[in-house]
Amino acid sequence: MTATAVVPTITREDLARTAAALREIAAPTPLVESAELTRRFGAPVWVKCEHLQPIGAFKIRGAFTAISRLPAAERARGIVTHSSGNHGQAVAYVAKHFGVRAVIVMPENAPQIKVDGIRRHGAEIVFTTRKERERKAQELIEKDGLVLVAPYDNLDVIMGQGTCAFEIFEDQPSIVTIVTPIGGGGMLAGTCAAVLAIKPSTTVYGVEPARSPKLTAALEAGHPVAFEPVETLADGLVPPSIGTITFEYIRHVVKAAIALTEDEIAAGVRFLFRSMGLKVEPSGATPVAALLAGKIDPSGPTACVLTGGNVDPAIFNRLVA
Amino acid sequence: MTATAVVPTITREDLARTAAALREIAAPTPLVESAELTRRFGAPVWVKCEHLQPIGAFKIRGAFTAISRLPAAERARGIVTHSSGNHGQAVAYVAKHFGVRAVIVMPENAPQIKVDGIRRHGAEIVFTTRKERERKAQELIEKDGLVLVAPYDNLDVIMGQGTCAFEIFEDQPSIVTIVTPIGGGGMLAGTCAAVLAIKPSTTVYGVEPARSPKLTAALEAGHPVAFEPVETLADGLVPPSIGTITFEYIRHVVKAAIALTEDEIAAGVRFLFRSMGLKVEPSGATPVAALLAGKIDPSGPTACVLTGGNVDPAIFNRLVA
Repeated sequence: MTATAVVPTITREDLARTAAALREIAAPTPLVESAELTRRFGAPVWVKCEHLQPIGAFKIRGAFTAISRLPAAERARGIVTHSSGNHGQAVAYVAKHFGVRAVIVMPENAPQIKVDGIRRHGAEIVFTTRKERERKAQELIEKDGLVLVAPYDNLDVIMGQGTCAFEIFEDQPSIVTIVTPIGGGGMLAGTCAAVLAIKPSTTVYGVEPARSPKLTAALEAGHPVAFEPVETLADGLVPPSIGTITFEYIRHVVKAAIALTEDEIAAGVRFLFRSMGLKVEPSGATPVAALLAGKIDPSGPTACVLTGGNVDPAIFNRLVA
Repeated sequence: MTATAVVPTITREDLARTAAALREIAAPTPLVESAELTRRFGAPVWVKCEHLQPIGAFKIRGAFTAISRLPAAERARGIVTHSSGNHGQAVAYVAKHFGVRAVIVMPENAPQIKVDGIRRHGAEIVFTTRKERERKAQELIEKDGLVLVAPYDNLDVIMGQGTCAFEIFEDQPSIVTIVTPIGGGGMLAGTCAAVLAIKPSTTVYGVEPARSPKLTAALEAGHPVAFEPVETLADGLVPPSIGTITFEYIRHVVKAAIALTEDEIAAGVRFLFRSMGLKVEPSGATPVAALLAGKIDPSGPTACVLTGGNVDPAIFNRLVA
């Protein structure tokens, strides 16, 4: 039996305040209607363009929220995190904004474009295996006195990611369905919390690679289940498991976990490029891919969160060719 | 009186062959309809997403065409060019593809994102003033035996840029108006040549910053007119003058030169981001900006060429905020 985390309720006012603070570093992203998806499903379908964030991914929301709320003396010691890439880029970008040191622990096989992004923002990188990354971060905390900003299982990070759904409702209050990818669960947890705070009747789906169906497994088991690292196009969606805290926000709100094959994920990337001119990474294309695969029926105005756009050019070119 | 260049006719077959060869390095870019512009003008308006090219700009078309057609022994000596950025990135990318040296002569105030892009592709950079860059390139040709691939006034480069309009007509044969930015004139010349070869009834416009109205002046004078360097958001559209060769392709085909204020250019960037989720650099947004400013009336199905997306994040964020 697993202990159940008790998690604080997030209010609309919390989200409004967090979203306003975020303006210091990032403008609201566009919510764009897909004429083709609207026509195909008979209900308006929008995409939330998180791939257009300054670092090319939504992770800046959580990283800024967490780092900006640290006591200044603690923040000045420097930040450490472990990440397959986008959270690492976000921490690097935000640390630079505050003028503090950042160390990112990354799996050795992280996409080059994400490694380059982190380097560009002046952070240090420590490579390790995907399985060892949490332990390695712990070492740095003990040795150098750095402060951990965990990629998803952190209340401030979840609050930050919740500002995405807040902005969606600000733009289109008519939304009745929101679809997000799920890796560690930060975005999905923030979305579920925002839905409870703003419009509890909203239907929420989490989409994951079939090769690493962590949400499917967690919902069946009633608690997070550890998975072995696997190769998938959706490289942003393969942490060792869903978080304990994120799962508490997700479990009572999400309608279903949707698992996609690699071909279905690729079809999402191709569609967003050819039909809308959007360059989105495979992980970020999964919500639209789930609609295209017929695995989600958008029964009314629907928002798909395109979480990021950081994909190696060679892989992208192969996918859209 | 200025000598008039005699330029070769470009055929549909030339363009088809050039476009097919280009597939070695770049897929066709999407032509995406803007629901908002279509609604506003009562005629379908598409945008051609050249900012989604591998280097983030159309320049890869001309650079690949010119470099791939060099005799192998000549190409092996290495390539030199002068560029405010996107052509330099294209030459760097293509030179890497062929495994040959590239040296890019750049103005000292070139946008950092374009400098970084060139470095990422492993090319050498020589900084100089905007006025001195052609002379500096000449020095390198004489000293190191490098081969010049001029940014626009080169027949192979113009042929390569012409594949953009070729793809537009392949996707939407109904197009009756094409709008492109004009700097040195490579894209506009290629477009004019393609229009003559494929659909001569097409109306073509060239859009330029009012601070550097080179096409307006050239059409009035009947020949290219040199301009002093100026600061403008449209940093890709301020070469010293239109090319002699490009102008010959342009002069008898283009309907008008459209000059835009800085505010009008900024409004184009903002519109493409907020309404379509597209991140386009100011130079590349000028065709849509010209429509929004009421300076072009799209009397039928219209294609706007979004030539590039390489804009420094700080400038972009300010423009779309």
